Amino acid sequence: MVQKFGGSSLRDADRISHVADRIARERATGVDLVVVVSAMGDTTDQLLDLAARITRDPDPRELDLLLSTGEHISGTLVAMALHARGVPAISLTGAQAGIRTDSAHGRARIANVDPSRIRGELDAGKTVIVAGFQGSTADDHLGADITTLGRGGSDTTTVALAARLEADRCEIYTDVEGIFTADPRLVREARLLPVIGYEEMLELAQQGAQVMQTRAVELGWVNGVEIAVRSSFSEHPGTVIKEDPFVEQRNKVRGLAHDRKVAKVTLVAVPDRPGVAHAVFAPLAEAGINVDMIVQNVSHAGTTDLSFTIPEADLAKAKRLLEPVVRGLGAKDLTTDAAVAKISIVGAGIQNAPGYAARMFGALAAAGVNIEMISTSEIRITCIISRDDLERAAVALHRAFELERPEAIVEHPARPVARRRAAGSRAS
Amino acid sequence: MVQKFGGSSLRDADRISHVADRIARERATGVDLVVVVSAMGDTTDQLLDLAARITRDPDPRELDLLLSTGEHISGTLVAMALHARGVPAISLTGAQAGIRTDSAHGRARIANVDPSRIRGELDAGKTVIVAGFQGSTADDHLGADITTLGRGGSDTTTVALAARLEADRCEIYTDVEGIFTADPRLVREARLLPVIGYEEMLELAQQGAQVMQTRAVELGWVNGVEIAVRSSFSEHPGTVIKEDPFVEQRNKVRGLAHDRKVAKVTLVAVPDRPGVAHAVFAPLAEAGINVDMIVQNVSHAGTTDLSFTIPEADLAKAKRLLEPVVRGLGAKDLTTDAAVAKISIVGAGIQNAPGYAARMFGALAAAGVNIEMISTSEIRITCIISRDDLERAAVALHRAFELERPEAIVEHPARPVARRRAAGSRAS
Repeated sequence: MVQKFGGSSLRDADRISHVADRIARERATGVDLVVVVSAMGDTTDQLLDLAARITRDPDPRELDLLLSTGEHISGTLVAMALHARGVPAISLTGAQAGIRTDSAHGRARIANVDPSRIRGELDAGKTVIVAGFQGSTADDHLGADITTLGRGGSDTTTVALAARLEADRCEIYTDVEGIFTADPRLVREARLLPVIGYEEMLELAQQGAQVMQTRAVELGWVNGVEIAVRSSFSEHPGTVIKEDPFVEQRNKVRGLAHDRKVAKVTLVAVPDRPGVAHAVFAPLAEAGINVDMIVQNVSHAGTTDLSFTIPEADLAKAKRLLEPVVRGLGAKDLTTDAAVAKISIVGAGIQNAPGYAARMFGALAAAGVNIEMISTSEIRITCIISRDDLERAAVALHRAFELERPEAIVEHPARPVARRRAAGSRAS
Repeated sequence: MVQKFGGSSLRDADRISHVADRIARERATGVDLVVVVSAMGDTTDQLLDLAARITRDPDPRELDLLLSTGEHISGTLVAMALHARGVPAISLTGAQAGIRTDSAHGRARIANVDPSRIRGELDAGKTVIVAGFQGSTADDHLGADITTLGRGGSDTTTVALAARLEADRCEIYTDVEGIFTADPRLVREARLLPVIGYEEMLELAQQGAQVMQTRAVELGWVNGVEIAVRSSFSEHPGTVIKEDPFVEQRNKVRGLAHDRKVAKVTLVAVPDRPGVAHAVFAPLAEAGINVDMIVQNVSHAGTTDLSFTIPEADLAKAKRLLEPVVRGLGAKDLTTDAAVAKISIVGAGIQNAPGYAARMFGALAAAGVNIEMISTSEIRITCIISRDDLERAAVALHRAFELERPEAIVEHPARPVARRRAAGSRAS
């Protein structure tokens, strides 16, 4: 079994002791355990702050070596806490755990996992603690550099190890009980989902649900690794992310996702000719600004309005970049709205069942919420609305799709779902 | 050239910037630079404290991995600060720098230095920052563990690299200006020594001078590496530790060393028979208590008094260990004095010049200082005195041996001293 404990579960010595108790109990059942750890609490932010006091533009290679220390520290402390409980344990750096990556510092991709050392330590009866979020470019110290995997890196480490070790289970311990039908802070009736499909989880995560990073979910999907998301502060089994054979029989909408930190940009009366989209979006892409929804209206008298959404944090930079573009294109105006929000319904059943969009728009209209933009995927419908309307919209949609009602389908744990193994799934 | 900056020189972002300025100036002269760093300020103590909150008895392997992060952090920050000044630089872990050690965690000995990566980075025009105090047991991540070198480890790293790279110079930057004839906090007239011999430096360090650890000095001696001890806060050239060909022509006494934290233990009226010393010192050695001076008086009526000194911090433990021994031996009593101090005169000339002991005892008597114990080596005379008398004794001895007077000998920098290279000096 591979478990992962996030930074909030390891914030101080007390929480580390609590995690060690938990690991010791699990280990006492006789199961081989690999435990991936994140850095303690806000260690990573503190290290970034240290670097920021030295330079505004830290070298990515040096930054990776700096940040990797956060997980070394938490890993050694968890190992020590296990020793104090009489549990044989060893902590390994990402490099020692055999995590080999490309050399894209700060956002490295895992190229291979060499599980030989982990297997050796497990065979010696040890619980293996692995520093998450990191790897190295080669086996040899003299030729290798330390890399980090970017946002959600520890989850990615966890799922990659579970895949490579062909672990029975993979558990992500965090500070929430699992995946809910909506953010419980927004919708009081929100219900914990016992099961969710990979694709649904991906859409929820992409649309703003912050529990799991999309990358680890994708890796789990490709390798057929079932991922349990659980709270390190309770015994609740949480949510299992897996291929869901009952998807047809369930409520077609599995959950709501929202993102409060969205800004809308509109180029008014842009001449409707080829090359316009490239002129607008190329400079944003170069600047690393992630453009999400794009809507272009029907052309009137040779001009069109082009609207899109970006993270609110990037709005000022985007305006600076786009003002010369707007002048160059001869558009009439550039308007922005920093106070919008995004709300989505997600469910694998949506694609085969008509009428969901109409039901969503109707529910929002009945709640007095104006829809500013719409986009859809096969299993998702997303609306941009005023940020002030977000809570009202979420409650209305949760009720309209009866998300508070428990699942009708009973799981059959005795009949496990066949794992889908993609070609090359051993090398994650 | 190999330089080392200690923790107090790297305490915060400002000091790191100051160090980076210094390195950048040195690099601008065109010299190839390897810079060894310690952990920032009291980082190592903070990490030890974290471990202490988890367990009273941390595993040495885990502790080494934990502590090694301190130098990774300072190394990356120095590299970033150099980048911000336009100086190409890269920070290496001890493992990446090719420092190979045995597996004695917490006090590892350097077995070999593979300088290939450092040489490659230097050839690529980079200033190489090396995390001091640490190494690894092998080249390969999967088979290797991180080790630390124990007290003074960064100095040891520095001298070992200077030897292996056959560096022209080796500079230890610290928070004092160099080696003084006595601790300036104790003796106002104390004078900075421009040069001191390896053997004299070793005796001073062993007798309490805290600027350099003995291990690095020994390594420099064996490999003929000249070590400059300088302040990172001034331009003063500091003290050079090297073979000193002018030793015969100098003041015979080079300096005073003192140690304030000493305790004296006396076994009163011990039966004078074989095996007594073993019975007393074996349990202390097993407990890791470092016994320094030992004095045994002439036997009277079949019994003798046995006195010795130990670090004050170990006194309580030593008493617990010795009480049953005293009973077993049939000694009369065990007395202790926790308030003594040690003061030594050190100088390579002492061995060939009689009368120094008499002059020392005379000076102490004239100052009204009672001598409780005496021990000598070829180049040192040490007295145990009451701790209250320490300052008075130091001032009196400094004057008696005219240590405040400048050296009469002028150095000839154009005629470098031939280096003494021991067999196998390449492998430090």
